[in-house]
Amino acid sequence: MVDTAIIGTGPAGISAALTLKALKKEILLFGGAQLSEKIRVAEEIRNYPGLPAVSGMEMQMAFARQLREMEIPITEKTVTGIYHMGTHYGILCDQEMFEAKTVILATGVEAVKPIEGELEFVGRGVSYCATCDGFLYKGKTIAVLCTTKELEHEIEYLASLAERVYLMPLYKNVQVQAGNVEIIMAKPRRITGGMKADSLEVGERTLAVDGIFMLKQAVTPSVLLYGLECEEGHITVDRNCRTNLPGCFAAGDCTGRPYQYVKAAGEGNVAAHSAVEFLAGK
Amino acid sequence: MVDTAIIGTGPAGISAALTLKALKKEILLFGGAQLSEKIRVAEEIRNYPGLPAVSGMEMQMAFARQLREMEIPITEKTVTGIYHMGTHYGILCDQEMFEAKTVILATGVEAVKPIEGELEFVGRGVSYCATCDGFLYKGKTIAVLCTTKELEHEIEYLASLAERVYLMPLYKNVQVQAGNVEIIMAKPRRITGGMKADSLEVGERTLAVDGIFMLKQAVTPSVLLYGLECEEGHITVDRNCRTNLPGCFAAGDCTGRPYQYVKAAGEGNVAAHSAVEFLAGK
Repeated sequence: MVDTAIIGTGPAGISAALTLKALKKEILLFGGAQLSEKIRVAEEIRNYPGLPAVSGMEMQMAFARQLREMEIPITEKTVTGIYHMGTHYGILCDQEMFEAKTVILATGVEAVKPIEGELEFVGRGVSYCATCDGFLYKGKTIAVLCTTKELEHEIEYLASLAERVYLMPLYKNVQVQAGNVEIIMAKPRRITGGMKADSLEVGERTLAVDGIFMLKQAVTPSVLLYGLECEEGHITVDRNCRTNLPGCFAAGDCTGRPYQYVKAAGEGNVAAHSAVEFLAGK
Repeated sequence: MVDTAIIGTGPAGISAALTLKALKKEILLFGGAQLSEKIRVAEEIRNYPGLPAVSGMEMQMAFARQLREMEIPITEKTVTGIYHMGTHYGILCDQEMFEAKTVILATGVEAVKPIEGELEFVGRGVSYCATCDGFLYKGKTIAVLCTTKELEHEIEYLASLAERVYLMPLYKNVQVQAGNVEIIMAKPRRITGGMKADSLEVGERTLAVDGIFMLKQAVTPSVLLYGLECEEGHITVDRNCRTNLPGCFAAGDCTGRPYQYVKAAGEGNVAAHSAVEFLAGK
Protein backbone atom coordinates (compact mmCIF):
# COMPACT_ATOMS: atom_id res chain seq x y z
CA MET A 1 0.00 0.00 0.00
CA VAL A 2 1.41 3.40 -0.95
CA ASP A 3 1.31 6.47 1.27
CA THR A 4 -0.64 8.65 -1.12
CA ALA A 5 -2.59 8.17 -4.33
CA ILE A 6 -2.80 11.35 -6.37
CA ILE A 7 -5.64 11.47 -8.87
CA GLY A 8 -4.87 13.83 -11.71
CA THR A 9 -1.84 15.14 -13.60
CA GLY A 10 -2.67 18.82 -13.90
CA PRO A 11 -0.63 21.41 -11.97
CA ALA A 12 -2.23 20.45 -8.63
CA GLY A 13 -1.47 16.75 -8.96
CA ILE A 14 2.05 17.37 -10.25
CA SER A 15 2.79 19.83 -7.45
CA ALA A 16 1.56 17.35 -4.82
CA ALA A 17 3.66 14.59 -6.40
CA LEU A 18 6.85 16.70 -6.43
CA THR A 19 6.46 17.64 -2.78
CA LEU A 20 5.57 14.14 -1.57
CA LYS A 21 8.46 12.65 -3.52
CA ALA A 22 10.85 15.24 -2.06
CA LEU A 23 9.56 14.22 1.37
CA LYS A 24 10.33 10.57 0.52
CA LYS A 25 6.74 9.33 0.49
CA GLU A 26 5.61 6.44 -1.67
CA ILE A 27 3.08 7.67 -4.17
CA LEU A 28 0.96 6.64 -7.13
CA LEU A 29 0.22 9.41 -9.60
CA PHE A 30 -2.79 8.57 -11.76
CA GLY A 31 -3.26 10.46 -14.99
CA GLY A 32 -2.25 10.74 -18.59
CA ALA A 33 1.20 10.97 -20.15
CA GLN A 34 -0.16 14.11 -21.83
CA LEU A 35 -0.62 15.52 -18.30
CA SER A 36 -3.44 18.01 -18.85
CA GLU A 37 -5.35 18.94 -21.96
CA LYS A 38 -6.29 22.30 -20.45
CA ILE A 39 -2.64 23.26 -20.09
CA ARG A 40 -1.54 21.91 -23.44
CA VAL A 41 -4.01 24.00 -25.42
CA ALA A 42 -3.31 27.27 -23.58
CA GLU A 43 -1.92 29.85 -25.99
CA GLU A 44 0.08 31.92 -23.53
CA ILE A 45 0.24 31.93 -19.76
CA ARG A 46 1.49 35.23 -18.40
CA ASN A 47 0.93 35.05 -14.68
CA TYR A 48 2.67 31.85 -13.59
CA PRO A 49 5.57 33.11 -11.45
CA GLY A 50 8.89 31.82 -12.74
CA LEU A 51 7.75 30.93 -16.26
CA PRO A 52 7.46 34.23 -18.14
CA ALA A 53 4.96 34.18 -21.02
CA VAL A 54 5.08 30.46 -21.70
CA SER A 55 2.81 28.59 -24.04
CA GLY A 56 0.77 25.76 -22.58
CA MET A 57 2.94 23.32 -24.49
CA GLU A 58 6.12 24.76 -22.97
CA MET A 59 4.65 24.59 -19.48
CA GLN A 60 3.65 21.00 -20.02
CA MET A 61 7.14 20.12 -21.24
CA ALA A 62 8.66 21.76 -18.16
CA PHE A 63 6.33 19.75 -15.91
CA ALA A 64 7.05 16.49 -17.75
CA ARG A 65 10.82 17.02 -17.56
CA GLN A 66 10.59 17.71 -13.84
CA LEU A 67 8.60 14.54 -13.21
CA ARG A 68 11.24 12.56 -15.12
CA GLU A 69 14.10 14.18 -13.21
CA MET A 70 12.42 13.45 -9.89
CA GLU A 71 11.77 9.88 -11.10
CA ILE A 72 8.01 10.08 -10.69
CA PRO A 73 6.22 7.71 -13.07
CA ILE A 74 2.64 8.27 -14.13
CA THR A 75 0.19 5.42 -13.72
CA GLU A 76 -1.73 5.77 -16.96
CA LYS A 77 -5.06 4.43 -15.88
CA THR A 78 -8.50 5.93 -15.60
CA VAL A 79 -9.71 5.93 -12.01
CA THR A 80 -13.32 4.81 -12.06
CA GLY A 81 -14.03 4.75 -8.36
CA ILE A 82 -12.47 5.47 -4.99
CA TYR A 83 -13.59 3.65 -1.87
CA HIS A 84 -13.03 4.71 1.71
CA MET A 85 -12.12 1.53 3.61
CA GLY A 86 -12.01 3.12 7.06
CA THR A 87 -8.25 2.98 7.56
CA HIS A 88 -7.26 3.45 3.92
CA TYR A 89 -8.59 3.99 0.41
CA GLY A 90 -9.15 1.63 -2.51
CA ILE A 91 -8.64 3.13 -5.96
CA LEU A 92 -10.39 1.20 -8.71
CA CYS A 93 -9.15 1.45 -12.30
CA ASP A 94 -11.41 -0.67 -14.45
CA GLN A 95 -10.97 -4.08 -12.77
CA GLU A 96 -7.68 -3.30 -11.02
CA MET A 97 -7.65 -2.14 -7.40
CA PHE A 98 -4.85 -0.08 -5.82
CA GLU A 99 -4.53 0.82 -2.14
CA ALA A 100 -3.31 3.99 -0.47
CA LYS A 101 -3.27 5.36 3.04
CA THR A 102 -4.28 8.82 1.81
CA VAL A 103 -5.75 10.29 -1.36
CA ILE A 104 -5.28 13.65 -3.04
CA LEU A 105 -8.03 14.49 -5.52
CA ALA A 106 -6.70 16.76 -8.26
CA THR A 107 -9.25 15.88 -10.90
CA GLY A 108 -9.79 19.33 -12.34
CA VAL A 109 -13.19 20.60 -13.20
CA GLU A 110 -15.28 19.56 -16.14
CA ALA A 111 -16.68 22.48 -18.09
CA VAL A 112 -19.63 20.27 -18.98
CA LYS A 113 -22.08 20.25 -16.11
CA PRO A 114 -24.19 17.18 -15.38
CA ILE A 115 -27.45 17.24 -17.32
CA GLU A 116 -30.84 16.74 -15.74
CA GLY A 117 -31.26 13.18 -14.46
CA GLU A 118 -27.59 12.28 -14.94
CA LEU A 119 -26.55 12.03 -11.30
CA GLU A 120 -29.87 10.45 -10.36
CA PHE A 121 -29.36 7.50 -12.73
CA VAL A 122 -25.62 6.85 -12.15
CA GLY A 123 -25.23 3.07 -11.84
CA ARG A 124 -28.77 2.62 -13.13
CA GLY A 125 -28.22 3.05 -16.83
CA VAL A 126 -25.79 5.97 -16.68
CA SER A 127 -22.07 5.14 -16.71
CA TYR A 128 -18.85 7.16 -16.91
CA CYS A 129 -16.62 4.26 -17.87
CA ALA A 130 -16.73 2.40 -21.19
CA THR A 131 -14.26 -0.30 -20.18
CA CYS A 132 -16.02 -0.97 -16.87
CA ASP A 133 -19.61 -1.19 -18.03
CA GLY A 134 -19.43 -1.60 -21.81
CA PHE A 135 -19.95 -5.37 -21.68
CA LEU A 136 -23.37 -4.82 -20.06
CA TYR A 137 -24.62 -3.40 -23.33
CA LYS A 138 -23.66 -6.13 -25.79
CA GLY A 139 -26.18 -6.03 -28.63
CA LYS A 140 -28.06 -3.15 -27.06
CA THR A 141 -28.79 0.48 -28.00
CA ILE A 142 -26.78 3.12 -26.18
CA ALA A 143 -26.24 6.85 -26.22
CA VAL A 144 -22.75 8.28 -25.74
CA LEU A 145 -21.88 11.84 -24.83
CA CYS A 146 -18.17 12.53 -25.28
CA THR A 147 -16.45 15.77 -24.33
CA THR A 148 -13.04 15.23 -25.88
CA LYS A 149 -11.42 13.67 -28.91
CA GLU A 150 -9.01 11.85 -26.62
CA LEU A 151 -11.75 9.47 -25.57
CA GLU A 152 -12.68 8.39 -29.10
CA HIS A 153 -11.11 4.99 -28.55
CA GLU A 154 -13.69 4.41 -25.81
CA ILE A 155 -16.48 5.24 -28.24
CA GLU A 156 -15.07 2.71 -30.70
CA TYR A 157 -14.87 0.11 -27.97
CA LEU A 158 -18.53 0.68 -27.09
CA ALA A 159 -19.50 0.55 -30.78
CA SER A 160 -17.81 -2.86 -31.03
CA LEU A 161 -20.17 -4.18 -28.36
CA ALA A 162 -23.47 -2.34 -28.78
CA GLU A 163 -25.78 -2.86 -31.72
CA ARG A 164 -26.51 0.79 -32.11
CA VAL A 165 -24.78 3.93 -30.81
CA TYR A 166 -26.11 7.49 -30.75
CA LEU A 167 -23.06 9.72 -30.38
CA MET A 168 -23.22 13.30 -29.14
CA PRO A 169 -19.69 14.68 -29.47
CA LEU A 170 -18.89 17.99 -27.73
CA TYR A 171 -15.74 18.49 -29.82
CA LYS A 172 -14.85 19.13 -33.43
CA ASN A 173 -13.39 16.87 -36.11
CA VAL A 174 -15.04 13.60 -35.07
CA GLN A 175 -13.23 10.59 -36.53
CA VAL A 176 -14.92 7.53 -35.03
CA GLN A 177 -14.45 4.46 -37.21
CA ALA A 178 -17.62 2.41 -36.83
CA GLY A 179 -20.64 1.70 -39.01
CA ASN A 180 -23.26 1.52 -36.27
CA VAL A 181 -22.71 5.05 -34.89
CA GLU A 182 -25.20 7.85 -35.60
CA ILE A 183 -23.74 11.27 -34.83
CA ILE A 184 -26.13 13.84 -33.38
CA MET A 185 -24.75 17.37 -33.24
CA ALA A 186 -26.76 18.58 -30.26
CA LYS A 187 -26.28 18.61 -26.52
CA PRO A 188 -28.41 16.14 -24.59
CA ARG A 189 -30.88 17.82 -22.28
CA ARG A 190 -32.44 15.29 -19.95
CA ILE A 191 -32.30 11.66 -18.93
CA THR A 192 -35.50 9.98 -17.86
CA GLY A 193 -36.57 6.48 -16.88
CA GLY A 194 -38.09 4.35 -14.18
CA MET A 195 -35.91 1.96 -12.18
CA LYS A 196 -33.33 2.44 -14.91
CA ALA A 197 -32.64 5.24 -17.37
CA ASP A 198 -34.39 4.42 -20.64
CA SER A 199 -34.54 7.60 -22.67
CA LEU A 200 -32.50 10.65 -23.52
CA GLU A 201 -33.89 13.94 -24.76
CA VAL A 202 -31.71 15.62 -27.38
CA GLY A 203 -32.93 18.65 -29.31
CA GLU A 204 -36.38 17.73 -30.60
CA ARG A 205 -35.81 13.99 -30.32
CA THR A 206 -36.31 11.53 -27.51
CA LEU A 207 -34.04 8.53 -27.95
CA ALA A 208 -35.05 5.17 -26.50
CA VAL A 209 -31.86 3.63 -25.10
CA ASP A 210 -30.69 0.80 -22.86
CA GLY A 211 -27.81 2.78 -21.43
CA ILE A 212 -26.08 6.13 -21.54
CA PHE A 213 -22.33 6.73 -21.35
CA MET A 214 -20.98 10.13 -20.33
CA LEU A 215 -17.33 10.11 -21.43
CA LYS A 216 -15.71 13.12 -19.74
CA GLN A 217 -12.19 14.02 -18.70
CA ALA A 218 -13.17 14.61 -15.11
CA VAL A 219 -15.88 12.68 -13.34
CA THR A 220 -18.07 14.55 -10.87
CA PRO A 221 -16.10 14.09 -7.61
CA SER A 222 -19.04 12.98 -5.47
CA VAL A 223 -19.72 10.22 -8.02
CA LEU A 224 -16.08 9.13 -7.92
CA LEU A 225 -15.95 8.94 -4.12
CA TYR A 226 -19.13 8.23 -2.19
CA GLY A 227 -19.70 10.48 0.81
CA LEU A 228 -17.44 13.28 -0.39
CA GLU A 229 -18.87 16.66 0.49
CA CYS A 230 -19.31 18.98 -2.48
CA GLU A 231 -20.91 22.34 -3.02
CA GLU A 232 -22.01 23.69 -6.39
CA GLY A 233 -19.86 21.16 -8.22
CA HIS A 234 -16.70 21.80 -6.19
CA ILE A 235 -15.18 19.67 -3.45
CA THR A 236 -15.55 21.37 -0.07
CA VAL A 237 -12.12 21.86 1.54
CA ASP A 238 -10.68 23.91 4.38
CA ARG A 239 -7.54 26.11 4.25
CA ASN A 240 -5.42 22.96 4.56
CA CYS A 241 -7.12 21.30 1.56
CA ARG A 242 -8.79 18.74 3.82
CA THR A 243 -12.11 17.30 2.64
CA ASN A 244 -14.79 15.96 5.00
CA LEU A 245 -13.25 12.46 4.73
CA PRO A 246 -10.20 11.68 6.93
CA GLY A 247 -7.05 11.20 4.87
CA CYS A 248 -8.69 12.58 1.74
CA PHE A 249 -7.49 15.92 0.40
CA ALA A 250 -8.31 17.93 -2.71
CA ALA A 251 -6.44 20.55 -4.72
CA GLY A 252 -6.77 22.61 -7.86
CA ASP A 253 -9.75 23.48 -10.00
CA CYS A 254 -11.87 20.77 -8.35
CA THR A 255 -11.91 22.83 -5.12
CA GLY A 256 -13.22 25.96 -6.84
CA ARG A 257 -12.25 29.21 -8.47
CA PRO A 258 -10.01 30.88 -9.50
CA TYR A 259 -9.25 28.25 -12.16
CA GLN A 260 -5.59 29.20 -12.39
CA TYR A 261 -2.44 27.12 -12.84
CA VAL A 262 -0.52 28.62 -9.95
CA LYS A 263 -3.47 28.45 -7.57
CA ALA A 264 -3.75 24.75 -8.40
CA ALA A 265 -0.01 24.18 -7.96
CA GLY A 266 -0.10 25.98 -4.60
CA GLU A 267 -2.97 23.85 -3.35
CA GLY A 268 -1.22 20.69 -4.50
CA ASN A 269 1.64 21.64 -2.22
CA VAL A 270 -0.69 22.36 0.70
CA ALA A 271 -2.56 19.06 0.19
CA ALA A 272 0.76 17.18 0.14
CA HIS A 273 1.79 18.70 3.45
CA SER A 274 -1.60 17.90 4.97
CA ALA A 275 -1.26 14.30 3.78
CA VAL A 276 2.19 14.06 5.37
CA GLU A 277 0.80 15.40 8.62
CA PHE A 278 -2.06 12.89 8.46
CA LEU A 279 0.37 10.02 7.78
CA ALA A 280 2.41 11.07 10.81
CA GLY A 281 -0.75 10.65 12.86
CA LYS A 282 -1.00 14.30 13.83
CA MET B 1 -5.20 56.24 -5.94
CA VAL B 2 -4.19 52.83 -7.25
CA ASP B 3 -6.44 49.78 -7.31
CA THR B 4 -4.21 47.58 -5.18
CA ALA B 5 -1.14 48.04 -3.02
CA ILE B 6 0.86 44.85 -2.65
CA ILE B 7 3.16 44.73 0.36
CA GLY B 8 6.05 42.35 -0.20
CA THR B 9 8.11 41.01 -3.10
CA GLY B 10 8.32 37.32 -2.23
CA PRO B 11 6.51 34.74 -4.40
CA ALA B 12 3.08 35.74 -3.04
CA GLY B 13 3.50 39.43 -3.78
CA ILE B 14 5.01 38.78 -7.20
CA SER B 15 2.25 36.34 -8.12
CA ALA B 16 -0.44 38.83 -7.08
CA ALA B 17 1.29 41.58 -9.09
CA LEU B 18 1.52 39.47 -12.27
CA THR B 19 -2.15 38.54 -12.12
CA LEU B 20 -3.39 42.05 -11.31
CA LYS B 21 -1.24 43.51 -14.08
CA ALA B 22 -2.56 40.91 -16.54
CA LEU B 23 -6.06 41.98 -15.50
CA LYS B 24 -5.12 45.62 -16.22
CA LYS B 25 -5.32 46.88 -12.65
CA GLU B 26 -3.21 49.76 -11.38
CA ILE B 27 -0.90 48.51 -8.68
CA LEU B 28 1.91 49.53 -6.37
CA LEU B 29 4.31 46.74 -5.46
CA PHE B 30 6.26 47.59 -2.30
CA GLY B 31 9.44 45.68 -1.60
CA GLY B 32 13.09 45.38 -2.38
CA ALA B 33 14.87 45.11 -5.72
CA GLN B 34 16.44 41.98 -4.24
CA LEU B 35 12.87 40.59 -4.00
CA SER B 36 13.22 38.12 -1.13
CA GLU B 37 16.19 37.16 0.99
CA LYS B 38 14.58 33.82 1.85
CA ILE B 39 14.46 32.84 -1.81
CA ARG B 40 17.89 34.17 -2.69
CA VAL B 41 19.70 32.09 -0.08
CA ALA B 42 17.88 28.82 -0.90
CA GLU B 43 20.38 26.24 -2.11
CA GLU B 44 18.04 24.17 -4.26
CA ILE B 45 14.28 24.19 -4.67
CA ARG B 46 12.99 20.88 -6.00
CA ASN B 47 9.25 21.10 -5.68
CA TYR B 48 8.29 24.28 -7.51
CA PRO B 49 6.35 23.02 -10.56
CA GLY B 50 7.87 24.29 -13.77
CA LEU B 51 11.30 25.16 -12.41
CA PRO B 52 13.14 21.86 -11.96
CA ALA B 53 15.84 21.89 -9.28
CA VAL B 54 16.55 25.61 -9.37
CA SER B 55 18.75 27.48 -6.96
CA GLY B 56 17.17 30.32 -5.05
CA MET B 57 19.24 32.75 -7.09
CA GLU B 58 17.92 31.31 -10.36
CA MET B 59 14.34 31.49 -9.12
CA GLN B 60 14.85 35.09 -8.11
CA MET B 61 16.29 35.94 -11.52
CA ALA B 62 13.31 34.30 -13.23
CA PHE B 63 10.93 36.35 -11.07
CA ALA B 64 12.85 39.59 -11.68
CA ARG B 65 12.90 39.05 -15.45
CA GLN B 66 9.17 38.36 -15.48
CA LEU B 67 8.42 41.56 -13.54
CA ARG B 68 10.51 43.51 -16.06
CA GLU B 69 8.81 41.89 -19.04
CA MET B 70 5.39 42.66 -17.59
CA GLU B 71 6.57 46.21 -16.88
CA ILE B 72 5.90 46.04 -13.17
CA PRO B 73 8.18 48.39 -11.22
CA ILE B 74 9.00 47.83 -7.56
CA THR B 75 8.43 50.71 -5.17
CA GLU B 76 11.53 50.33 -3.03
CA LYS B 77 10.25 51.71 0.21
CA THR B 78 9.72 50.23 3.63
CA VAL B 79 6.07 50.25 4.60
CA THR B 80 5.88 51.39 8.19
CA GLY B 81 2.15 51.50 8.67
CA ILE B 82 -1.12 50.78 6.87
CA TYR B 83 -4.30 52.64 7.76
CA HIS B 84 -7.84 51.60 6.98
CA MET B 85 -9.62 54.80 5.91
CA GLY B 86 -13.09 53.27 5.58
CA THR B 87 -13.32 53.36 1.78
CA HIS B 88 -9.63 52.86 1.05
CA TYR B 89 -6.23 52.30 2.63
CA GLY B 90 -3.34 54.63 3.39
CA ILE B 91 0.14 53.11 3.11
CA LEU B 92 2.78 55.01 5.03
CA CYS B 93 6.43 54.73 4.04
CA ASP B 94 8.45 56.83 6.45
CA GLN B 95 6.82 60.24 5.88
CA GLU B 96 5.30 59.49 2.48
CA MET B 97 1.67 58.35 2.20
CA PHE B 98 0.27 56.30 -0.70
CA GLU B 99 -3.37 55.43 -1.27
CA ALA B 100 -4.99 52.26 -2.58
CA LYS B 101 -8.52 50.91 -2.85
CA THR B 102 -7.37 47.46 -1.75
CA VAL B 103 -4.33 45.97 -0.05
CA ILE B 104 -2.66 42.60 -0.39
CA LEU B 105 -0.37 41.75 2.51
CA ALA B 106 2.43 39.46 1.40
CA THR B 107 4.89 40.33 4.10
CA GLY B 108 6.27 36.87 4.77
CA VAL B 109 6.88 35.60 8.23
CA GLU B 110 9.68 36.60 10.53
CA ALA B 111 11.45 33.62 12.06
CA VAL B 112 12.17 35.82 15.06
CA LYS B 113 9.12 35.93 17.30
CA PRO B 114 8.29 39.03 19.33
CA ILE B 115 9.96 38.96 22.74
CA GLU B 116 8.16 39.53 26.00
CA GLY B 117 6.95 43.12 26.30
CA GLU B 118 7.70 43.96 22.65
CA LEU B 119 4.16 44.28 21.35
CA GLU B 120 3.03 45.92 24.59
CA PHE B 121 5.49 48.81 24.20
CA VAL B 122 5.18 49.44 20.44
CA GLY B 123 4.97 53.22 19.99
CA ARG B 124 6.03 53.66 23.60
CA GLY B 125 9.76 53.16 23.34
CA VAL B 126 9.70 50.23 20.93
CA SER B 127 10.03 51.00 17.22
CA TYR B 128 10.40 48.94 14.04
CA CYS B 129 11.59 51.79 11.85
CA ALA B 130 14.93 53.58 12.18
CA THR B 131 14.15 56.28 9.62
CA CYS B 132 10.74 57.03 11.14
CA ASP B 133 11.66 57.27 14.79
CA GLY B 134 15.44 57.60 14.89
CA PHE B 135 15.36 61.38 15.37
CA LEU B 136 13.49 60.89 18.66
CA TYR B 137 16.64 59.43 20.17
CA LYS B 138 19.21 62.10 19.36
CA GLY B 139 21.87 61.96 22.08
CA LYS B 140 20.09 59.12 23.86
CA THR B 141 20.90 55.49 24.68
CA ILE B 142 19.18 52.87 22.59
CA ALA B 143 19.18 49.12 22.07
CA VAL B 144 18.91 47.67 18.58
CA LEU B 145 17.98 44.13 17.69
CA CYS B 146 18.70 43.39 14.05
CA THR B 147 17.78 40.15 12.27
CA THR B 148 19.61 40.65 8.98
CA LYS B 149 22.78 42.11 7.57
CA GLU B 150 20.71 43.95 4.98
CA LEU B 151 19.51 46.38 7.63
CA GLU B 152 22.99 47.38 8.81
CA HIS B 153 22.63 50.79 7.16
CA GLU B 154 19.72 51.44 9.52
CA ILE B 155 21.92 50.59 12.49
CA GLU B 156 24.54 53.04 11.23
CA TYR B 157 21.89 55.71 10.81
CA LEU B 158 20.73 55.19 14.39
CA ALA B 159 24.33 55.26 15.63
CA SER B 160 24.78 58.63 13.91
CA LEU B 161 21.98 60.05 16.07
CA ALA B 162 22.12 58.24 19.42
CA GLU B 163 24.91 58.70 21.91
CA ARG B 164 25.15 55.03 22.71
CA VAL B 165 23.92 51.93 20.92
CA TYR B 166 23.68 48.39 22.27
CA LEU B 167 23.49 46.14 19.24
CA MET B 168 22.16 42.58 19.35
CA PRO B 169 22.70 41.18 15.86
CA LEU B 170 20.97 37.88 14.98
CA TYR B 171 23.24 37.30 12.00
CA LYS B 172 26.90 36.58 11.37
CA ASN B 173 29.72 38.75 10.09
CA VAL B 174 28.65 42.05 11.63
CA GLN B 175 30.30 45.01 9.91
CA VAL B 176 28.74 48.10 11.43
CA GLN B 177 31.02 51.16 11.07
CA ALA B 178 30.46 53.24 14.19
CA GLY B 179 32.45 53.94 17.36
CA ASN B 180 29.52 54.18 19.76
CA VAL B 181 28.10 50.70 19.15
CA GLU B 182 28.55 47.91 21.70
CA ILE B 183 27.85 44.50 20.26
CA ILE B 184 26.17 41.98 22.56
CA MET B 185 26.05 38.44 21.20
CA ALA B 186 22.91 37.31 22.98
CA LYS B 187 19.22 37.36 22.24
CA PRO B 188 17.18 39.90 24.20
CA ARG B 189 14.64 38.30 26.51
CA ARG B 190 12.29 40.90 27.87
CA ILE B 191 11.35 44.55 27.62
CA THR B 192 10.07 46.29 30.73
CA GLY B 193 9.12 49.80 31.67
CA GLY B 194 6.36 52.04 32.99
CA MET B 195 4.61 54.46 30.64
CA LYS B 196 7.49 53.86 28.28
CA ALA B 197 9.91 50.99 27.79
CA ASP B 198 13.06 51.76 29.76
CA SER B 199 14.99 48.54 30.10
CA LEU B 200 15.93 45.46 28.15
CA GLU B 201 17.01 42.16 29.66
CA VAL B 202 19.73 40.38 27.69
CA GLY B 203 21.50 37.33 29.06
CA GLU B 204 22.56 38.25 32.61
CA ARG B 205 22.39 41.99 31.99
CA THR B 206 19.61 44.52 32.23
CA LEU B 207 20.28 47.48 29.97
CA ALA B 208 18.84 50.87 30.86
CA VAL B 209 17.71 52.42 27.57
CA ASP B 210 15.62 55.29 26.22
CA GLY B 211 14.37 53.31 23.25
CA ILE B 212 14.52 49.94 21.55
CA PHE B 213 14.59 49.31 17.82
CA MET B 214 13.60 45.93 16.43
CA LEU B 215 14.96 45.89 12.89
CA LYS B 216 13.33 42.91 11.19
CA GLN B 217 12.53 42.02 7.61
CA ALA B 218 8.86 41.52 8.33
CA VAL B 219 6.93 43.51 10.88
CA THR B 220 4.28 41.70 12.90
CA PRO B 221 1.16 42.19 10.73
CA SER B 222 -1.15 43.33 13.50
CA VAL B 223 1.37 46.06 14.32
CA LEU B 224 1.53 47.13 10.68
CA LEU B 225 -2.25 47.35 10.30
CA TYR B 226 -4.38 48.10 13.32
CA GLY B 227 -7.44 45.87 13.72
CA LEU B 228 -6.11 43.06 11.54
CA GLU B 229 -7.12 39.70 12.94
CA CYS B 230 -4.21 37.34 13.59
CA GLU B 231 -3.81 33.98 15.24
CA GLU B 232 -0.53 32.63 16.58
CA GLY B 233 1.46 35.12 14.54
CA HIS B 234 -0.35 34.49 11.26
CA ILE B 235 -2.97 36.63 9.54
CA THR B 236 -6.38 34.96 9.68
CA VAL B 237 -7.74 34.45 6.16
CA ASP B 238 -10.49 32.43 4.54
CA ARG B 239 -10.17 30.21 1.43
CA ASN B 240 -10.31 33.34 -0.73
CA CYS B 241 -7.43 34.99 1.17
CA ARG B 242 -9.77 37.58 2.66
CA THR B 243 -8.81 39.02 6.05
CA ASN B 244 -11.32 40.39 8.54
CA LEU B 245 -10.92 43.89 7.02
CA PRO B 246 -12.90 44.67 3.83
CA GLY B 247 -10.64 45.11 0.82
CA CYS B 248 -7.62 43.72 2.67
CA PHE B 249 -6.25 40.36 1.58
CA ALA B 250 -3.22 38.32 2.63
CA ALA B 251 -1.11 35.69 0.91
CA GLY B 252 1.99 33.61 1.46
CA ASP B 253 3.91 32.74 4.60
CA CYS B 254 2.14 35.48 6.58
CA THR B 255 -1.10 33.44 6.41
CA GLY B 256 0.50 30.30 7.86
CA ARG B 257 2.19 27.05 7.01
CA PRO B 258 3.35 25.35 4.86
CA TYR B 259 6.07 27.96 4.27
CA GLN B 260 6.55 26.99 0.63
CA TYR B 261 7.22 29.04 -2.49
CA VAL B 262 4.46 27.56 -4.60
CA LYS B 263 1.89 27.75 -1.81
CA ALA B 264 2.73 31.45 -1.50
CA ALA B 265 2.54 32.00 -5.26
CA GLY B 266 -0.83 30.22 -5.39
CA GLU B 267 -2.25 32.37 -2.63
CA GLY B 268 -0.97 35.53 -4.31
CA ASN B 269 -3.06 34.57 -7.33
CA VAL B 270 -6.14 33.89 -5.18
CA ALA B 271 -5.73 37.19 -3.30
CA ALA B 272 -5.43 39.05 -6.61
CA HIS B 273 -8.69 37.54 -7.86
CA SER B 274 -10.42 38.38 -4.59
CA ALA B 275 -9.18 41.97 -4.86
CA VAL B 276 -10.54 42.20 -8.42
CA GLU B 277 -13.88 40.89 -7.24
CA PHE B 278 -13.90 43.42 -4.39
CA LEU B 279 -13.04 46.27 -6.78
CA ALA B 280 -15.94 45.23 -9.01
CA GLY B 281 -18.17 45.70 -6.00
CA LYS B 282 -19.21 42.07 -5.79
